[in-house]
Amino acid sequence: MQTGQIILGIDPGTLVMGYGIICVNGRSIELLEMDIVKLSSKKNNYERLMIIHSQVQSLIAKYKPHEFAIEAPFFGKNVQSMLKLGRAQGVAIAVAMQCGIPVTEYSPRKVKQSITGNGNADKLQVWEMLRRITAIAGEPEYYDASDALAVAVCHHFQLSSPLKSDKQATVLPGKKKTSWESFVAQNPDRILRK
Amino acid sequence: MQTGQIILGIDPGTLVMGYGIICVNGRSIELLEMDIVKLSSKKNNYERLMIIHSQVQSLIAKYKPHEFAIEAPFFGKNVQSMLKLGRAQGVAIAVAMQCGIPVTEYSPRKVKQSITGNGNADKLQVWEMLRRITAIAGEPEYYDASDALAVAVCHHFQLSSPLKSDKQATVLPGKKKTSWESFVAQNPDRILRK
Repeated sequence: MQTGQIILGIDPGTLVMGYGIICVNGRSIELLEMDIVKLSSKKNNYERLMIIHSQVQSLIAKYKPHEFAIEAPFFGKNVQSMLKLGRAQGVAIAVAMQCGIPVTEYSPRKVKQSITGNGNADKLQVWEMLRRITAIAGEPEYYDASDALAVAVCHHFQLSSPLKSDKQATVLPGKKKTSWESFVAQNPDRILRK
Repeated sequence: MQTGQIILGIDPGTLVMGYGIICVNGRSIELLEMDIVKLSSKKNNYERLMIIHSQVQSLIAKYKPHEFAIEAPFFGKNVQSMLKLGRAQGVAIAVAMQCGIPVTEYSPRKVKQSITGNGNADKLQVWEMLRRITAIAGEPEYYDASDALAVAVCHHFQLSSPLKSDKQATVLPGKKKTSWESFVAQNPDRILRK
């Protein structure tokens, strides 16, 4: 039984769903599990959604996370790919909500920025930082899994950051926060600290 | 206890979810329930998805439908609105799949065409036909509810049509069927019958 705060990170896609679960105890971040679920082998799009549904349910039942963080790109190539992606995201979010777990979403850029300090960092740079943070060795088998781990760690950083308003800055597409407070929250690297 | 085939029709949106349940016995189509769930009163987008999740679960538990039909526009104004719509659709589809109910989706145009013979029919024309088909009187309180009823009736027509391949013609966005068979299936009104 874990005693710290457990965060489930999910990176849902139309072909693969990545997930990463961490347990935070003070300053220590322990990786409990990270892996992917391949959805592509199932030809039926509806079956893929069902797999996401049951997989997220299983992970919640197994780890009883206190928080749920999801990587959610707001922009895509076209409306049809966004519709498909939205379906996958919606399923994962609804299951977490149904289980009473607070949901927060982060854009890929926000995740990279939170982990490496650079919103344009590549996957290898993100992995390098994750390895140091969670003290795991080796290379990730799948980057979809490490992306999910990254969003879980990102969420922990946001929760434990003194700039709490940053969490609220993660809003759904279409809603823009334009206040100075939210700009500062979204750009902590622009603040000069003494 | 209903003895016929029960079809649950869902028209999920970001502010309102319409639903309609019919029971088919031979040539008779009985309306069991049609209504909407307002999602707009809940400010949190995640809560809206949770409401769709629990509402679809309740409807399935109450009516034990044999089939699930969903109205799913494939095109939207922009990627962000499609992402939101996709989330709502994905939740409803995953719940039905999880309950072991076959899912079929129809574009709004296909639904109108199936009910009225005209893919560009307005909501009043669709309602007029639905009234005759299901022998209900009066005006619909909400068109989102009658849209959901329409997709349930449309699905019944597709199931009972001699052109069974029409069902398979309802595919997810991005997959185009270009065969002659699927063209015929999608345009049954172009076939001359003796």
